[in-house]
Amino acid sequence: MTVKDQAEAWFKELQDKITSELEAIDGKGRFIEDSWTRNEGGGGRSRALTEGRLIEKGGVNFSAVHGKTPEKILKALNLSQADFYATGISLVLHPQNPWAPIIHMNLRYFEMSNGVHWFGGGIDLTPHYIKRDDAVFFHQQLKNVCDNHNPIWYKEFKKWADDYFYIDHRNETRGIGGIFFDRLSGSHEKSIDQIFDFVKETGNTFLPTYIPLLTKNSAITFGNKEKEWQYLRRGRYVEFNLVYDKGTKFGLDTNGRTESILMSLPPLASWKYNFQPEKGSEESKTTDWLKKNIDWLA
Amino acid sequence: MTVKDQAEAWFKELQDKITSELEAIDGKGRFIEDSWTRNEGGGGRSRALTEGRLIEKGGVNFSAVHGKTPEKILKALNLSQADFYATGISLVLHPQNPWAPIIHMNLRYFEMSNGVHWFGGGIDLTPHYIKRDDAVFFHQQLKNVCDNHNPIWYKEFKKWADDYFYIDHRNETRGIGGIFFDRLSGSHEKSIDQIFDFVKETGNTFLPTYIPLLTKNSAITFGNKEKEWQYLRRGRYVEFNLVYDKGTKFGLDTNGRTESILMSLPPLASWKYNFQPEKGSEESKTTDWLKKNIDWLA
Repeated sequence: MTVKDQAEAWFKELQDKITSELEAIDGKGRFIEDSWTRNEGGGGRSRALTEGRLIEKGGVNFSAVHGKTPEKILKALNLSQADFYATGISLVLHPQNPWAPIIHMNLRYFEMSNGVHWFGGGIDLTPHYIKRDDAVFFHQQLKNVCDNHNPIWYKEFKKWADDYFYIDHRNETRGIGGIFFDRLSGSHEKSIDQIFDFVKETGNTFLPTYIPLLTKNSAITFGNKEKEWQYLRRGRYVEFNLVYDKGTKFGLDTNGRTESILMSLPPLASWKYNFQPEKGSEESKTTDWLKKNIDWLA
Repeated sequence: MTVKDQAEAWFKELQDKITSELEAIDGKGRFIEDSWTRNEGGGGRSRALTEGRLIEKGGVNFSAVHGKTPEKILKALNLSQADFYATGISLVLHPQNPWAPIIHMNLRYFEMSNGVHWFGGGIDLTPHYIKRDDAVFFHQQLKNVCDNHNPIWYKEFKKWADDYFYIDHRNETRGIGGIFFDRLSGSHEKSIDQIFDFVKETGNTFLPTYIPLLTKNSAITFGNKEKEWQYLRRGRYVEFNLVYDKGTKFGLDTNGRTESILMSLPPLASWKYNFQPEKGSEESKTTDWLKKNIDWLA
């Protein structure tokens, strides 16, 4: 099997595994699947869960599309024409409980008819309330995956996530970051199969990393104050996704399936003019952590 | 007095008039003022109202800034260097009652040290529920203003609003449009003073146009269903403002005052995966109206 076929099959399997496990843990919410096809070639399976016990809104999407490479990519690569193929899995989960963090993962494989191909993706966490222990656990999990493949990757991909998930007009990070990587191709010391192994391990670490964070924090009592803070933080999530996220921009620009692209948006979000959390509060401690280059594993 | 000084004084006065009148009508909400200065020159008065009786969240901002012209504008005008001065008023009101429409107005004057100067702006309405009578009244008010100055302006500026307030990835307009105009300079058959007269008349028509729509519709009973629909429509408002609005983009890109720029965002907004209103419902009728080139005055 070609890398392309293997990647497509593996992302599909991962979607199955993640959605069935999340349903089991949630106990109430069910993923509804929409299969869609793209006029220009390919299609996908979007799966959305609403009003679960632990998850308020979540999407776990798989797609495999192909056709003429969009102008924007051709330009960026200095090519005049080529066909492309792209497959991937993309998920965002917005939990009910404000103490439980929002998570995002995206893994993708891209190839073009001229032979260029690469993997990209990452996992990052956006807690409404940042807790040091959770942040350490989360980053350690990702570091373990990276360290199995290349000793410098965690540091490199962690910085990439810090830089990428940054809300410039707020001077804050979206959350505590994680890892982000793009255009990892079979060159240097790794073959494309070895990179695919790394991508698979990243995908496989999703459930054992997020499930404990979700279940543990979902048991914490909360009230209106915490819920209101969650809505405000979700507002920032919306700002990042609509203003900065390259995947969202690219999807909307290239006439992608809007409902699948925007499944990342929260069920309910709010904006208050010039809101400042009380000094010394949990909310204020969280905003203090929304900075680049925090070494959680120091 | 120069046009610049007159415009600045007039926009300030208009802000006073609008905020005091809105407070009187609302009866509960009060505008809180933040005065701010810009490091590079100038400043503004942002006025925000939260949790009023009729208005859930509103901002009425005045600013007058100057300094070196931002790169983006210089490039668009093919200039290598010039100082600029810009003053304006910008407002967005999100009513409590879903039957009452969101309104937006912006009026601005811009000039550069090379002598170029112009007025721009407009008023547009975003009802959560579109009602023909209200739409006719709203557009007739704007047409009356335009007709007093140029018989072709209403048609021209109405089309401009339809094209501008368009959410491409949703294939729908933000609301029922209104008028939008930009770079109206003292050329052709009008002097800059005559254009300023038109801008003033546009500003003066705001209260007599919006107040009846606000008060009349705020008297209509609503429940959870209407409130949820309002949150969804506000979600689209957020999508437009963060993805397409040039003023927002420009403000964020040029390091403007984030809280003033984003005062346009709603107090609470929601996103549901692939939500489709029931056939024949009021909600569905509204989405049917979200199209360009509807001639409300036919």
